[in-house]
Amino acid sequence: MPKAVAGPEIERLIQLLARLPGLGPRSARRAALHLIKKRDQLMGPLTDALETAHAKIVVCATCGNIDTHDPCTVCTDPGRDASVLVVVADVADLWALERAGAVSARYHVLGGTLSPLDGIGPQDLTIDALMSRAHQPAVKEVILALNATVDGQTTAHYITDLLHDANVKVTRLAHGVPVGGELDYLDEGTLSAAIRQRTLI
Amino acid sequence: MPKAVAGPEIERLIQLLARLPGLGPRSARRAALHLIKKRDQLMGPLTDALETAHAKIVVCATCGNIDTHDPCTVCTDPGRDASVLVVVADVADLWALERAGAVSARYHVLGGTLSPLDGIGPQDLTIDALMSRAHQPAVKEVILALNATVDGQTTAHYITDLLHDANVKVTRLAHGVPVGGELDYLDEGTLSAAIRQRTLI
Repeated sequence: MPKAVAGPEIERLIQLLARLPGLGPRSARRAALHLIKKRDQLMGPLTDALETAHAKIVVCATCGNIDTHDPCTVCTDPGRDASVLVVVADVADLWALERAGAVSARYHVLGGTLSPLDGIGPQDLTIDALMSRAHQPAVKEVILALNATVDGQTTAHYITDLLHDANVKVTRLAHGVPVGGELDYLDEGTLSAAIRQRTLI
Repeated sequence: MPKAVAGPEIERLIQLLARLPGLGPRSARRAALHLIKKRDQLMGPLTDALETAHAKIVVCATCGNIDTHDPCTVCTDPGRDASVLVVVADVADLWALERAGAVSARYHVLGGTLSPLDGIGPQDLTIDALMSRAHQPAVKEVILALNATVDGQTTAHYITDLLHDANVKVTRLAHGVPVGGELDYLDEGTLSAAIRQRTLI
């Protein structure tokens, strides 16, 4: 354990910064020093932004998105197609799809994926709420935008089964070559899927 | 410009986090989401730590270290060799040397290096303060722990010249092969220095 160079207040700041994803102990130290040097331009505004966010953030009771008002920006946007429901595991996935501008619809955040190994069952996710939303007459399609992992696909199958008697089309994301990807680096599963689901030029 | 998914308060938090070194726009988004999910365990404590640090941080008037009290932890530590003064360009370098436990002495932070191209001259650094400290009778050695760059070495030469008439030994860090480094990847300058300054086994 190295000697403390700075007071315990600074050490505590470094330790907390190191718990952010993407920052390790070394880069947290660098970030702390940067904050300290830019006390007024960055440290003050960041403190305020954290405080405001902490006070205002709510989880949307409808879709599970994180926002500063409930219902959230997405749920209250009148320009979106309310007949399509995009099911994602996490808020990060919702944000990623929105950044890509991939779809202009409503979302439903499950809060994770089914994972027997981690003890996550249907009751731990917002599947009941999804069912009641999917059974609304306005909803015509449910897009399962889940990770192409074992847990993601298990969850997709589980939801598809549950939606069997609902009057909706259930779809999933296409598998294939990522845009900009090189065939040589792709796994066999992706390549096989890309061949099977080839499209006419 | 993608549509805003979350409220402006969250977008502002993401923008400020993205200004930290080591975090880009994408990882800042991930960090913000992580903070929001861990509101009480991480976001609250981090806000408090930033506030405390912002209120308490001072620059040590003696050595230039950043701490929550002046004189700083290093300057007030009675266990350190007060006859040795380690000159560093930046507080980050002081912290790096302390993490390594490389030396138990006093420091002097210059606040940068001489850089004619960037318009940084001797008056922009704490060189005057260094001179008066180095001329104190208790000080026997000045270690110039500066980067092995052109600016760092220019600064070292400049300080060495100024300390010509002071009654101190002026030393610099050894050049050589980094511990764990492979010869094949090292530049010619380092290899030549490592050969010239070879030591007996």
